Order: sequence, then C-alpha cells, then structure tokens
Amino acid sequence: MTTLYYSPGACSLAPHIVLEEIGKPFDTVRVSLRDDEHKQPAYLAVNPRARVPALAVDGQILTESTAICLYLADCNPQLGLAPPVGTFERARMQEWQAWLTGTVHIDYGQLWRPERYSDDQSAHPGIIAKGKAAAALHYDDIEQRLGGPFALGERYTVVDPYLFVMQRWGYRIKLDMSRYPRFNALAQAMYARPAVQRAMEREHLKPIG
Amino acid sequence: MTTLYYSPGACSLAPHIVLEEIGKPFDTVRVSLRDDEHKQPAYLAVNPRARVPALAVDGQILTESTAICLYLADCNPQLGLAPPVGTFERARMQEWQAWLTGTVHIDYGQLWRPERYSDDQSAHPGIIAKGKAAAALHYDDIEQRLGGPFALGERYTVVDPYLFVMQRWGYRIKLDMSRYPRFNALAQAMYARPAVQRAMEREHLKPIG
Repeated sequence: MTTLYYSPGACSLAPHIVLEEIGKPFDTVRVSLRDDEHKQPAYLAVNPRARVPALAVDGQILTESTAICLYLADCNPQLGLAPPVGTFERARMQEWQAWLTGTVHIDYGQLWRPERYSDDQSAHPGIIAKGKAAAALHYDDIEQRLGGPFALGERYTVVDPYLFVMQRWGYRIKLDMSRYPRFNALAQAMYARPAVQRAMEREHLKPIG
Repeated sequence: MTTLYYSPGACSLAPHIVLEEIGKPFDTVRVSLRDDEHKQPAYLAVNPRARVPALAVDGQILTESTAICLYLADCNPQLGLAPPVGTFERARMQEWQAWLTGTVHIDYGQLWRPERYSDDQSAHPGIIAKGKAAAALHYDDIEQRLGGPFALGERYTVVDPYLFVMQRWGYRIKLDMSRYPRFNALAQAMYARPAVQRAMEREHLKPIG
C-alpha cells in the first residue's frame, strides 16, 4: 500500500492531488504542522527531517514534494502527468519544480519560520518583511511565465498542483492577488478537477479567492 | 549548438561536468558572479532571474542546475547518468536534487547573500551564523545518507556533481570537513574522473581538501 503523510493545506497537497488523479488506492496519515505533529517521535521515525510530505511505498520512504509527484507520474505514464522523458517540455516542467522549491517556497519559510534563518529574534520582523516582498516579485515572475491555463500551456502536469498550493498561500499572506489573472485562472482550472476536490475534501480545505 | 553559462566554482559546475561526461561539443560563456556579471544587461537578456547556470539549446534557455543536469542525462540515456524512469532509484536521486536545491543551497544563500533574507544590515551576522550552523547539520545528514562512493551507491548519477560542488563549498566556509569521510570519498571519486578534470580546468579550479 502507498501511504501519504500530509498536513492540511501544506505543500503535501500537491502529491495528494496527484494520488487522486491517478486514482489507485492509497492511505493518508494527517501530520498537522499547526499542532507540531511533525516534530513528534512518531513522525520523526518516518522522516527524520521533520517535513511533510512523505510517501511510504513498498517499505521505503520518499520525501520532497517534487520528487514524489514526479515519481507518481512516472509510475503511471499512461496518464501523461509529465511530458515524455528527453523532451524540452519535461525539462521546462522540472525547471518550474526546482525554482518553486529553491526560491518561492523559501519566501514562505522566511514568512512562517523566520527562526530557520536567524536565532536573533529581533531580526525576525525584517526576515518576514523580506520574505513577503520577495514573494510579490516572484508572483509577478510566475504570472509572466505561465502558459495558461497550466504552467506548460494546455498540458496539465505535476507542477500545476504545486503552483496551485502557492496560489492559495498567496491569499494567506495577503498578497494582492488581483495582480495575477493567469495564476488565478490556473487555480480555477484546478478547483474544477474532481481529483483536486477529493483531496481538498479529505484535508478539510475550502476554495480561496 | 549547446551553450552553458557558468560562473567558476558555482553550482553551474555540476551541469558543466555533465556536459563533459556526455562528450558532445558545447560552448561555454563565463559569467563571473564575483564580478557581478550576472547582473549586467548582457546576461539578464539570457536569464532575467540573474542566476547561473543557464543552458541555451535550440534557441531556448533552460535554467536551474538540477533541471539542466537531468535534461542532459535524459537526452543521452545510453550513458546511464540517471536511473531508468519509473524506478524508485530515480525517485531517490530526485529527492537528493530537491533537498539540495531547497535546503543545503539555501544555507549558502544565507552565508554569501544575507541581503536576500533581510534588508536590515544589522541582522546579517545572525543570518550568516545560522546559515553556517544549518550547513553543519545538513552535512551530517549528507554523510549519514550517502551510499558510497556515490549518492546512490555504486551508480554514478547527475546528483553527484551537485554534491561535489557542495563538498568544495564546505571547505570555503571552513566547515570541519574531517567529520565527513564518505562525503570526502565522493569528492575524491569525482576528482578522478576525466570529465571532472576537464570542467575544472576550463573553470580554472583546483582540488580542495
């Protein structure tokens, strides 16, 4: 059995959606970041790095949202959730994944976990402010690059659920989301998908925006 | 023609090595981060995000080190620089890539570019100190997870050149590298490869450690 460890609305929503797109049976385990469940021994035994998501499959644990999403896509090639191997389109999808992981996701690290970046509490307001300013710039970048309706254009791929999570987070930090019509259109296209609706229902999430 | 934009010793060394492993003709353009060449109009026309590496291929630009490395591997499957698609081994490689991108690389962002994390200059020493402390913890994690001699064990893959860059950076920030015998063995295995030697010679780099 495949088991996804997730926290409601976290970036683990992306592989959760991909699992629903695939439609094969899977289990879920809720690990609430808000309740610090990711720091408890039960979860540290699954992922010592204390982050979600984690995927248990065939007795092995896989972490990192983008790696999990791509693995699930590659195990189910008939669904076309990732472009064919060796194409530039696939490389473009992986560029999106890497940039979201190493840049946009970090903005939220600064905003929500400034203690990761300095032990000096008096520095935290400045770290948070810079995270929010960087996110606004990065959302401008996303808006400019989106093919529409999805990241790669007409083709839906496993980077879109990750972008969808980021669009929802934009509201949480009160970015001016009216600046991003293409990004919002991507989210609306996601909300219309039954797989997205099922994952959101299990995580007790509601549409935003 | 394929053209790599790189800065000496930066993470662009990873795709540079992969290009040398493949052995097909390619051009290089030096974009020195030290001389702020990545912020000049000539390079911003290539990559508006002002980061290296960038790969120009068939009139398109691809960024993000891990995406470039994997694309190059996938265009040359006969070399086996990435495990087969759909295998757990490949997922493990991509987990390494994502974690290095979103976690270890960020430690160096804090150390070398604290202005990315706060506009308040008085906060920078704390951000730098935390980056170094985090790097030490993350290098412990790397050491524990390395299969040896390479990340996935006997099999050399495109994540190893990225780890090699990180091992060299560990010396630059004066981490106690004697704590990491397996990580050092990976670097030694890299130094022994002719492709690595060629890329280093072109970047005018010398072995460290």
